[in-house]
Amino acid sequence: MRKEYPDDSLILHTDAYQVNMIETYWHDGIHNRKAVFELFFRKLPFGNGYGIFAGLERIIQYIQDFRFTDSDIEYLRDEFGYEEEFLAYLKGLKFTGKIRSMREGELVFGNETILQVDSTLAEAQLVETALLNIVNYQTLIATKASRIKQIIGSEQAMEFGTRRAQEMDAAIWGTRAAFIAGFSSTSNMRAGKLFGIPASGTHAHSMIQAYMDDYTAMKKYAESCVRRKNKAFIPLVDTYDTLRSGVPSAIKVAKEFEGRVKFDGIRLDSGDMAYLSKEARKMLDDAGFPDACIVASNDLDEYTIMNLKAQGAKINVWGIGTKLITAYDQPALGAVYKIVAIENEHGEMLDTIKISGNPEKVTTPGIKKLYRIINMINQRSEGDYIALDEENPNDEDHLKMFHPVHTYISKFVTNFEARDLHHDIFVDGQLVYELPDIFEIQKFALSNMDVLWDEYKRSLNPEEYPVDLSQKCWDNKIAVIQKVKEQVANLK
Amino acid sequence: MRKEYPDDSLILHTDAYQVNMIETYWHDGIHNRKAVFELFFRKLPFGNGYGIFAGLERIIQYIQDFRFTDSDIEYLRDEFGYEEEFLAYLKGLKFTGKIRSMREGELVFGNETILQVDSTLAEAQLVETALLNIVNYQTLIATKASRIKQIIGSEQAMEFGTRRAQEMDAAIWGTRAAFIAGFSSTSNMRAGKLFGIPASGTHAHSMIQAYMDDYTAMKKYAESCVRRKNKAFIPLVDTYDTLRSGVPSAIKVAKEFEGRVKFDGIRLDSGDMAYLSKEARKMLDDAGFPDACIVASNDLDEYTIMNLKAQGAKINVWGIGTKLITAYDQPALGAVYKIVAIENEHGEMLDTIKISGNPEKVTTPGIKKLYRIINMINQRSEGDYIALDEENPNDEDHLKMFHPVHTYISKFVTNFEARDLHHDIFVDGQLVYELPDIFEIQKFALSNMDVLWDEYKRSLNPEEYPVDLSQKCWDNKIAVIQKVKEQVANLK
Repeated sequence: MRKEYPDDSLILHTDAYQVNMIETYWHDGIHNRKAVFELFFRKLPFGNGYGIFAGLERIIQYIQDFRFTDSDIEYLRDEFGYEEEFLAYLKGLKFTGKIRSMREGELVFGNETILQVDSTLAEAQLVETALLNIVNYQTLIATKASRIKQIIGSEQAMEFGTRRAQEMDAAIWGTRAAFIAGFSSTSNMRAGKLFGIPASGTHAHSMIQAYMDDYTAMKKYAESCVRRKNKAFIPLVDTYDTLRSGVPSAIKVAKEFEGRVKFDGIRLDSGDMAYLSKEARKMLDDAGFPDACIVASNDLDEYTIMNLKAQGAKINVWGIGTKLITAYDQPALGAVYKIVAIENEHGEMLDTIKISGNPEKVTTPGIKKLYRIINMINQRSEGDYIALDEENPNDEDHLKMFHPVHTYISKFVTNFEARDLHHDIFVDGQLVYELPDIFEIQKFALSNMDVLWDEYKRSLNPEEYPVDLSQKCWDNKIAVIQKVKEQVANLK
Repeated sequence: MRKEYPDDSLILHTDAYQVNMIETYWHDGIHNRKAVFELFFRKLPFGNGYGIFAGLERIIQYIQDFRFTDSDIEYLRDEFGYEEEFLAYLKGLKFTGKIRSMREGELVFGNETILQVDSTLAEAQLVETALLNIVNYQTLIATKASRIKQIIGSEQAMEFGTRRAQEMDAAIWGTRAAFIAGFSSTSNMRAGKLFGIPASGTHAHSMIQAYMDDYTAMKKYAESCVRRKNKAFIPLVDTYDTLRSGVPSAIKVAKEFEGRVKFDGIRLDSGDMAYLSKEARKMLDDAGFPDACIVASNDLDEYTIMNLKAQGAKINVWGIGTKLITAYDQPALGAVYKIVAIENEHGEMLDTIKISGNPEKVTTPGIKKLYRIINMINQRSEGDYIALDEENPNDEDHLKMFHPVHTYISKFVTNFEARDLHHDIFVDGQLVYELPDIFEIQKFALSNMDVLWDEYKRSLNPEEYPVDLSQKCWDNKIAVIQKVKEQVANLK
């Protein structure tokens, strides 16, 4: 029988190789050397023209609780046989470094740093797995939700996906990411409680089945709505027969309860949504309920919504589940976490690189800063600009921006403001950042869309947003590649 | 600013509509009526011929902790304005009913009950969302892992996906599901600690970068391996140049540490895996390490593995990440939870149905049992058989099995054993089932594959496994549909 440990902690939510490496560094006495890692993805998901960063709230929680418990140490001893001295070192470990990050709701693009960890080699290495796990998922979902929001405009989107989410954390953090990108509510009460997102819901088919007919069930349900704070009455009409039983019953009950409930509309969950919504719309209008909404929920995403709209469907509230919460058409974002600089034995910082058989996996060495170049005439962004730590593009009149692969494609920008996209989150291991509440984060995310030209926002074949390197950053990359090539050649 | 609640509990991990419905039932005095719900999916994922059930361990934990905390009640009061009497009822709520379920590792097919909840209407309704969330994800991943295992046979598969998983729960419960289906290990130490899965790992590119060259880094790493329990030395060889630097350095270090570490092999993580593995194989063989494995890890799944094998790649250990842990090619399983019977005001159980514009969404009414029909001559399964609760197929000599849609396709089976696939998990709210340890569950899952003909196991276009209804179950379904149709017609 396996041994049971009495508790759980997230510091062990890491790949075993991280601890192996730290053991190597510790034994070699280099675990406390300064190291800088950068977290970024290479390619935007869904063929989208931009991403929306989410994940910082959970990262803050994780770093604040970053301690090995007694049972963690016991597990490491039992399972891997690490030496007692090393285990004692781990027991005393906490995060002592610096984290700079984009704010949640920030626009993010490929090959630019979302978050930078500047700490001891051991600490910076140990946090990798959890940081990637958090950012990859939450950023993916915020981006997917934003795509949906682009299609529905000012219409409401409700997040309904908990039952199909990839386990429980995905349900709650995913719905939070969707809210950041502009969704209106969640069905998940726990997410409502934890994050302050408005939680809402109607009823299920099982309630109609429990009462055996639409009218009786909807009447009982309306009585319940009378007792609740928001009085919202939105019956589900497709349990037995949408147009012959569901909608007529909903209208009948709505009339009986007029003034006592808010008849916000009806919900459709199966069948031909375009046809049913148009017929239901007529029935609602004829009955004197022109303001009652039609809520639809059945495997919707930006593609099906666009098609329903093209067919003239009369749906104006969208319940989005599976396709959003799992990012169905691309369920993983490939963010990575790469070391870009490390202290040597003389206390100097050296730039590091990873070279690879896959050219897009070659990293950009050195500690870098990331700026968004805002054109001061139209307040739109000219692109993002990656510079070495010591550079300040705001000191320049004419900024040269060039494509990091096709370097002959370039432009000069004048009359601009270079906005540093990173903010201090932890300094010397202490939290120095106050996380805005979820409504402020949503507002920030929505306002960011204004700096983007429409060409970057369309869901199909958007223009490629420029993410450029400074000349110094580029020159440094080429020099470091050259140095490594020479090392490898000398080995032979 | 939003209100912060002091704790978190999983009972609120539910859709808001569940609590709305319970309020309706409670006020109407029917919340304690007996109700039976069944959890099933309609269609197997990935076009696979079978599924592997996983999720029971977490369901047991969830049901055992099924209590509203004070802060949950406070949230419900603040946000929804439920009446105090109803909140007091919720505060006293616990699970008092019965749960019957398949065992983890069981083979599962479309349209058959995985798990049945027989409790009060309120309790059975409230658990829906969490049960689906758990079963949908874990069963999906166990099934995906089993597909991969079918392709690699007795070769080892290591689960490496945490950083790309959909948040933290998915990482740990997903890797557990993969282990159930036959994976050998996880990279996630927390999953190792919580579930007793062997955790393993090598090192990352960053370690090579920290030391600036392959040889130095691998040597330091080998020293660390000497100190560890299993002594396994598996360096990663593709940081700078696989064949010119990585593999030669690995061999050099392996020779220097011969007898002190176990040189299990090398790991490739980028580049042309087929070519590099063949070249590396030659180099290892020539150096006198014919038993050193070649571990590959770079976006692998059953399709890429099959292709690599077709190209003669010399890979014999497979590190599987993203594509498994997110079920990349189909990231959601569509299991649903449907009411099949409810007590009426006279204390009699009535069968319920949901009819829908989508024919496959019509449920099968009534409390049912599920049997696997094993042919006693060859010990293979003839199919699964859904019967009404009161039937016992083992009493029959000749069992008629017919297709539930194309009813004219039928066969008679003799000399069979009908195995009840459901086991009591909770009775009167008490846990009566002892969950096997993870190694036993894996053994059970692997042994189940033996009852399946190979035709159901192939990854492309498998035969459709029969899931049949008994005659009585079929007749009952038709009768209930008829009854509802008449009700709807009378409404007009």
